[in-house]
Amino acid sequence: MPLHRLTHLSRYLPFLKWFLEYRSQHLIGDLMAGVIVAIMLVPQGMAYALLAGLPPQIGLYASIMPLILYALLGTSRTLAVGPVAIVSLLVATGVGQLAQPNTSEYLTLAMMLALLVGILQMLMGVVRLGFLVNFLSHAVISGFTSAAAIIIGFSQLKHLFGLQLPKTESFPELLQEIWQHLPQRNSITLILGLTSLVVLLVFNHQLQPLLKKLGMPQNLILPLTRGGPLLLVLVNTVLVWRLQLHEVAQVKIIGEIRAGLPPLTLPTFDLKSWQALMPTAVAISLVGFMESISVAKSLASKRRQKIDANQELIGLGAANLSAAFTGGYPVTGGLSRTMVNFSAGANTGLASIITALLIALTVLFFTPLFYFLPQAVLAAIIIVAVLNLIDFTSLQRMWQYNRADAASLLITFGAVLGLGIEAGILVGVLASLCLYLWRTSHPHLAVVGRIEGSEHFRNVLRNPVKTYPHVLAIRVDESLYFANIKALEDYVLHAVSHISDLQHLVLICSAINFIDASALETLEALFADLNSAGVRVYLAEVKGPVMDQLEKTDFVEKLGRERIFLSTHQAMLALGCN
Amino acid sequence: MPLHRLTHLSRYLPFLKWFLEYRSQHLIGDLMAGVIVAIMLVPQGMAYALLAGLPPQIGLYASIMPLILYALLGTSRTLAVGPVAIVSLLVATGVGQLAQPNTSEYLTLAMMLALLVGILQMLMGVVRLGFLVNFLSHAVISGFTSAAAIIIGFSQLKHLFGLQLPKTESFPELLQEIWQHLPQRNSITLILGLTSLVVLLVFNHQLQPLLKKLGMPQNLILPLTRGGPLLLVLVNTVLVWRLQLHEVAQVKIIGEIRAGLPPLTLPTFDLKSWQALMPTAVAISLVGFMESISVAKSLASKRRQKIDANQELIGLGAANLSAAFTGGYPVTGGLSRTMVNFSAGANTGLASIITALLIALTVLFFTPLFYFLPQAVLAAIIIVAVLNLIDFTSLQRMWQYNRADAASLLITFGAVLGLGIEAGILVGVLASLCLYLWRTSHPHLAVVGRIEGSEHFRNVLRNPVKTYPHVLAIRVDESLYFANIKALEDYVLHAVSHISDLQHLVLICSAINFIDASALETLEALFADLNSAGVRVYLAEVKGPVMDQLEKTDFVEKLGRERIFLSTHQAMLALGCN
Repeated sequence: MPLHRLTHLSRYLPFLKWFLEYRSQHLIGDLMAGVIVAIMLVPQGMAYALLAGLPPQIGLYASIMPLILYALLGTSRTLAVGPVAIVSLLVATGVGQLAQPNTSEYLTLAMMLALLVGILQMLMGVVRLGFLVNFLSHAVISGFTSAAAIIIGFSQLKHLFGLQLPKTESFPELLQEIWQHLPQRNSITLILGLTSLVVLLVFNHQLQPLLKKLGMPQNLILPLTRGGPLLLVLVNTVLVWRLQLHEVAQVKIIGEIRAGLPPLTLPTFDLKSWQALMPTAVAISLVGFMESISVAKSLASKRRQKIDANQELIGLGAANLSAAFTGGYPVTGGLSRTMVNFSAGANTGLASIITALLIALTVLFFTPLFYFLPQAVLAAIIIVAVLNLIDFTSLQRMWQYNRADAASLLITFGAVLGLGIEAGILVGVLASLCLYLWRTSHPHLAVVGRIEGSEHFRNVLRNPVKTYPHVLAIRVDESLYFANIKALEDYVLHAVSHISDLQHLVLICSAINFIDASALETLEALFADLNSAGVRVYLAEVKGPVMDQLEKTDFVEKLGRERIFLSTHQAMLALGCN
Repeated sequence: MPLHRLTHLSRYLPFLKWFLEYRSQHLIGDLMAGVIVAIMLVPQGMAYALLAGLPPQIGLYASIMPLILYALLGTSRTLAVGPVAIVSLLVATGVGQLAQPNTSEYLTLAMMLALLVGILQMLMGVVRLGFLVNFLSHAVISGFTSAAAIIIGFSQLKHLFGLQLPKTESFPELLQEIWQHLPQRNSITLILGLTSLVVLLVFNHQLQPLLKKLGMPQNLILPLTRGGPLLLVLVNTVLVWRLQLHEVAQVKIIGEIRAGLPPLTLPTFDLKSWQALMPTAVAISLVGFMESISVAKSLASKRRQKIDANQELIGLGAANLSAAFTGGYPVTGGLSRTMVNFSAGANTGLASIITALLIALTVLFFTPLFYFLPQAVLAAIIIVAVLNLIDFTSLQRMWQYNRADAASLLITFGAVLGLGIEAGILVGVLASLCLYLWRTSHPHLAVVGRIEGSEHFRNVLRNPVKTYPHVLAIRVDESLYFANIKALEDYVLHAVSHISDLQHLVLICSAINFIDASALETLEALFADLNSAGVRVYLAEVKGPVMDQLEKTDFVEKLGRERIFLSTHQAMLALGCN
């Protein structure tokens, strides 16, 4: 096949790019990263499946084919796909409304959800709707993520304390139930859980600097520090088994895990369930894509690689479809595992394929090892993972930088905790859009005057400038559209009604990037009215694209071409203000 | 009372301004305008009441106290308040869903609606929500008005043809019913109606130029041309009476109108009805205010007077409250009557008070005269009035100027006809906001180069300019916020991944009016990633207010203050590009 055909093909099969250029020096990094991510993924996959209300092996199943599919079709070479905390929470709340956890109906619905997410993401990729995710602002994402992390953390407290809670519908209800059931806690479970928590925190935060200080080589430090969860799993499993804690102290354990490769599953096509799952599927499609693309982009730019948002949707969609057909549940690119994959030296998608093969070996041969694993340890793994998602820094920075952004963060945070995940995101998105519209509907307008002896004109309120009684020069610091044109009109009319000997009005348009039809009509009417009130209007510094637009109408003829000046200085000179 | 106390008071009682300065030369204009508007208002008031599904005298009642209240509390000196076509249509659709027209229940609900509108407008004025109306774009207003005019016009065809139609729920249904009942038309009614239509069109469009040509003085032309409807009413009434057409040919007549001043009415407080009426009340409050304020502003600016949007809401709210307590129905400032009031020479609110007194005299003494008035004549008056509201020009202009605006006009137009008035407005507003967001989320970005031998940098695609292989200068033509920052990021990353020997990136910020927190975070991450990829970032022409914002964070320190240049020229010189 000639090269240009291959290049063309690689748009649809992005792995061809790295596959055809694969070099031997890539292998060591890919192998290393593949192994380390697998070590992280075994306990995380099981833990997130439990969080989603599913048997632990489902998390492992969702860590095989989806990784391979994404490696073939995704554009990021380092993204680590698989079960993640927030998508698991969305699954738990979405499917939890329709069925009881740990029933076969629940399992069927979770796979159906993966199918729907796969279809949605594929469709969005094909019709190029990737831009939709742009409407999730940092503030909304941060507020949502923090709130979701808190909900996830508290949802794991029951495992940590060994409590038997009834199903809860909302976060406030969950808090109440935990509080009421606290006296029935299982102390041995709590001790195992808290110890795990402390060990994990030490592994995450203390071990790396310590090992570095001890002079251990970097390519040993990473597997050791990232192996923390797997180590905990093994130690606790052995402990429970030797002391028979599940019998002696009623410590809840994972129990039997079905061994063998994931079965081929055929999701059922049930219109009513599809409709019921649709809002959750939309939320997972967007939130999952958003989490994935942001980390993929950031890492790709560090190596001057390119991420194609719409091809990413196709890659993630394919991953979710494969999850639906191999007994899995919705997946996406995870933030922390991707970072580990990248720093462990992953060069290409081969790293993910290696991870997938290792997980496949695990489900084939090692699942009996997890029989005695206490649930509290998985809960501790989840809690430590989501602790990193709680984001106070953004709030603090936004509060300092811009109160409106901080407000939409807090609104989203409160709405997710108070109204639930999906309603919360929706409220957040609407709030951030309203705040943006509010901002642009209150344009910054400045009366300017000449800095004496220069051609510069500046805000009269900020600078000592020279003004002229019969001429008013106003700089408009916003594109003009229907929601803000009235503010300009009011400002001008107020000025005109207060300056009795005003004859000329100069509008400085240097910051106007477009004028919509409403604004244009209002301007025309305003200029005509001002004209009959004896005030002549002039424009200065109209941008090229705006002028192109205006030329399509008779605006320029009506105003008079001689009244449009290239610079404010020229306009003022023409009006005798020098 | 000292003068400054009065000035202060006149903020709340705007009539004090003209009352205290009243001069004798104002009187002739006010008197003339008051009489002419009354001549228009008598038939229009009755006609619009019929359109709203109410007895004709309700339209007259709504033309007394509301006019006086607005004259005292409104800030426009020439606005002619009273029943208008579109608000009447909104009343008909809103109240029509809850009761049968011409029942006492219907009447009660209409007054309740006036009360609700009054309360809403007052509240909006007090908490300064007048800006809400800014979110109705010209495109939405034009599409809505045209569609409403068409609905009104077709709703009057049954009177024009003398048809008995069943109640219809939607515009398509109305069309269908008219079509089906057309064979049952009353020919005499149709003749009266069509003749009236033609006479009115002649009065509106032919008579004024003709009389002018004949040399008639202007202050006689206006009462003559504007007296057309009243003349028609009188001629047709006499005709029906003399020929007994209501008996002979079953021509539908107005019948008995209750004589005497409007009764004092107490709207009932019924929570369920209030809730049911609320969407209509919100629509009337906003649409009525919008119609009113746009004409008020335009006329005030011609005389260098000032309109205060929030005080206008209070004035209109008070007018509606008074309508609720004097047997009326919702009112607002009407476009055509206000224009007539203005051109007839109205100087102050006294003109409206004179109109109100004349209407009061009419209901006291002259209602028996309208007994034989055929409904077809009122229908003709309505049809001619709304014909002027159908606005093809805006569509044509917008299509030429900006397809997005034309699209939101057409969407609103179609939605109002297809989905109904209130849903249609809502769809239109959302569509126009989405189109705005779409536009700002796709910022114009231009790679610029030096116009040789100058300090000017222009778009490389539009101008023959000099560029430098290791430096990329990008001009950003939009404020940066969450919905468009990804577009900039993609653009930059694409450029960086395609120019292999790129070392420096200059962002020209002259058109950036603000940067929100999301955009700032993305920029920071982008700059850091570019840095690790060996590309250094510089900013040029950052605006004062934007710089002030950035100074609140550590952005400037992180970037390096020496990397921010006042002009693009300075930045390029520093990078060795001259």
